[in-house]
Amino acid sequence: MRDITPKYKDVSKWYQDVVVKAELADYSPVKGSMVIRPYGFALWESIQKFMDNFIKKAGVKNAYFPLFIPESYLHKEKEHVEGFSPQVAVVTFAGGEELKEKLVVRPTSETIMYEMYKQWFHSWRDLPVLINQWNNVVRWEKRTYLFLRTSEFLWQEGHCAHATHEDNWKTVLWAMNLYKKTYQNLMGVYGIVGKKSQSEKFAGGDNTLTYEIMMPDGKALQGCTSHDLGQNFAKAFNWTVLDQGGAPLYPYQNSWGFSTRSIGALILAHGDDDGLIMPPEIAPVQVVIVPIYKTENKDKVIECSRKIVKKLGSFRIELDLHDDETAGFKYNKWEMKGVPVRIEIGEKEVNDQSLTLVRRDTKEKIKIKESDLKSSLKKVLEEIQNNLFEKHKKTTEENTHQAKTYDEFKKIMKSTKGFIYAFWCENVDCEEKIKSETKATTRCLPLKAKKENGKCIYCGRKANYRWVFAQAY
Amino acid sequence: MRDITPKYKDVSKWYQDVVVKAELADYSPVKGSMVIRPYGFALWESIQKFMDNFIKKAGVKNAYFPLFIPESYLHKEKEHVEGFSPQVAVVTFAGGEELKEKLVVRPTSETIMYEMYKQWFHSWRDLPVLINQWNNVVRWEKRTYLFLRTSEFLWQEGHCAHATHEDNWKTVLWAMNLYKKTYQNLMGVYGIVGKKSQSEKFAGGDNTLTYEIMMPDGKALQGCTSHDLGQNFAKAFNWTVLDQGGAPLYPYQNSWGFSTRSIGALILAHGDDDGLIMPPEIAPVQVVIVPIYKTENKDKVIECSRKIVKKLGSFRIELDLHDDETAGFKYNKWEMKGVPVRIEIGEKEVNDQSLTLVRRDTKEKIKIKESDLKSSLKKVLEEIQNNLFEKHKKTTEENTHQAKTYDEFKKIMKSTKGFIYAFWCENVDCEEKIKSETKATTRCLPLKAKKENGKCIYCGRKANYRWVFAQAY
Repeated sequence: MRDITPKYKDVSKWYQDVVVKAELADYSPVKGSMVIRPYGFALWESIQKFMDNFIKKAGVKNAYFPLFIPESYLHKEKEHVEGFSPQVAVVTFAGGEELKEKLVVRPTSETIMYEMYKQWFHSWRDLPVLINQWNNVVRWEKRTYLFLRTSEFLWQEGHCAHATHEDNWKTVLWAMNLYKKTYQNLMGVYGIVGKKSQSEKFAGGDNTLTYEIMMPDGKALQGCTSHDLGQNFAKAFNWTVLDQGGAPLYPYQNSWGFSTRSIGALILAHGDDDGLIMPPEIAPVQVVIVPIYKTENKDKVIECSRKIVKKLGSFRIELDLHDDETAGFKYNKWEMKGVPVRIEIGEKEVNDQSLTLVRRDTKEKIKIKESDLKSSLKKVLEEIQNNLFEKHKKTTEENTHQAKTYDEFKKIMKSTKGFIYAFWCENVDCEEKIKSETKATTRCLPLKAKKENGKCIYCGRKANYRWVFAQAY
Repeated sequence: MRDITPKYKDVSKWYQDVVVKAELADYSPVKGSMVIRPYGFALWESIQKFMDNFIKKAGVKNAYFPLFIPESYLHKEKEHVEGFSPQVAVVTFAGGEELKEKLVVRPTSETIMYEMYKQWFHSWRDLPVLINQWNNVVRWEKRTYLFLRTSEFLWQEGHCAHATHEDNWKTVLWAMNLYKKTYQNLMGVYGIVGKKSQSEKFAGGDNTLTYEIMMPDGKALQGCTSHDLGQNFAKAFNWTVLDQGGAPLYPYQNSWGFSTRSIGALILAHGDDDGLIMPPEIAPVQVVIVPIYKTENKDKVIECSRKIVKKLGSFRIELDLHDDETAGFKYNKWEMKGVPVRIEIGEKEVNDQSLTLVRRDTKEKIKIKESDLKSSLKKVLEEIQNNLFEKHKKTTEENTHQAKTYDEFKKIMKSTKGFIYAFWCENVDCEEKIKSETKATTRCLPLKAKKENGKCIYCGRKANYRWVFAQAY
């Protein structure tokens, strides 16, 4: 009836069905890219509003740097170009002629931004540099996985510079905290904050923090990242500022990004067989009112519905007046779109001055007095928000394992998958072998991890920390 | 001392100096493109906030369509491809290989959007389609003219579709009204709303409305446009919906765009020999406080300054605490940035509980009681906003001429330039000859124009309307 694949029958198929049917996004004619439809874009606008407020409060200023980067710039940082070259799109022809220097469509903006930083900032007084931009970037993909893997995506990229490594690291942590808050308080998505291994970190950086999210198929999604770039780029661009003593100093830099990919995590974390489930904080529509009437009471019912809409002006509300659709069709449609609360208004509701709120997450029906409407609705929306986060946290915990032996590790990765905490010696050889044998990669070393006396699950050598492993999206 | 060219000595040089010195924008390493610095981007954010509010209120929803358009799509509408082909940037190589079909970096999004509209909307019930996007577009330029002419620029492009031409035209007008409001109420920039001639209209459309702005060198700037596309694109894409009777209908479409170019108009309209002048409504900083102290009274003066900042929390305010700069240096710096009001706080102000507001536009000093601060400041900011608009309107009117003969027309275009109202027969031959002989093009037929009994200024044949001519940016 819903015309979508049941979620736990085939998560990937369910996901693609639901994204298209709920009109969040669609495939574009160019392979690998996507169109974000208004209902999906409203989610991104919620995220932007939430994050931009904190970004500005921290004194970080928005700016805009060019889409096109001269190819030679990308080559200035050796690891950086190796990491991004295979994925770039290249403009070779413009304004009616072949270009002398090819232009790369930005896959990320470190190189073009830091060239400008070098031109603009010359003294310790100019530090810290606190700049962010909201833009589009391109990293070539042959197959589209809506929101999760697309050639072009939207994001913000923050690029700060500091006089000391300590201050720089504080910004790296601040950004990851902002991301955690966005995922947890706005999107109801639980995750683990940790440090990437050297082979999984950002190309050209020293260290990367990540927010790793458990998905319903037991795979992990890298939710966003915040990078400590050290002095690598300052050195590559030969950018120095004069310190207080008048000596040249290579500034310490960081970059941090949060993209439309996060919307994929949101969808996967909360949806069910009836479609999306939207946490109220981010929901483009928090409440939908479906009037139920016959010809003889239509005016009365609609008048009452409009009165309710007016009363609920501070909520994001939609009144569904389509008269070519049955009530049942409308219920399904709004459930598919994941609207947190539905209010049905018919003859009975008009007469009784009582209302029924239908929760999208639990399907529970809650009878309330019309006079309590605002406070009851507020309470229910808060409960839904909490419930979705707690549910995702619980699922994540149920899918989190401790492996004491490599056999145990392999067994888990073959069956339920999920996160596995296991000792690792931090040697890249073991990491690669585990990956090729189990498809599981190191996701992160949790920031909360404590030093222990352990043995690497693969080679048995000394290992100080339990890392988190999982198969990745 | 200011290190900028006097405005009326060389407007173009003054403009470039001021944009760079006030840190609005800078040249990017790629010819033709630019970097928008935080102070300049804050202007764009003000514009976005102002416009997006009205866009949403009108029921238009934001979405996001891809950056890359298959080359064949651009070719679907004949005039459209002819208009844009010479300016497109082309991706020929991506993901490590030559592309089978070249991809055009969007110069505007009609073609990619309407392909999706065709896939999504099939019934009269789906109309009107009301969609907008905020994005970046690329139209190749070899020389950068910061904000005014850059290969990449930021804008919004609205794309609506209606069942009737009448409704479609209403949206075209609504968009132009929104633009007028943005220019006049937010940016204090006067202009003439009118219809473009057939040779100056949008490539592929039926009619274009424009907002034409008079610049200090007597040239006109096309401030933004709103296009009636008729059924041209629906036919080119073979997009029909079923009307109420079940018959196929080609929807009527419109598109309307407002770009970062507008910031160029803002700068040119208001600045003077000391730098920018920002209308308070759009100013990123409305008030700057410059404390003036010696070692012995530093604490007292700064404490008082902070108290004032706190009191003025509802204004966009900056307290300049740089202790490596003299007061005079700070005055110049904030004048360059065009901050509407400066408040100087020294020993005297601390003791007297009185303050002096210094207006950026008139340089006037206004003594006020500290107890009246908020209301006085509000009043002064309103006065500045009005004054700037009235001043630009007056300058425009002083630069607006009526030409009765072609000799008169030529004389004006050789000397002061400006807008010229003159009868034109609407024949493209006359338009072209006037352009090649005087560099003046038809800017628009004002919406307010009345039908008259006139003779074309060039050929002497019957002409019904006085068109506005000017040399254009």
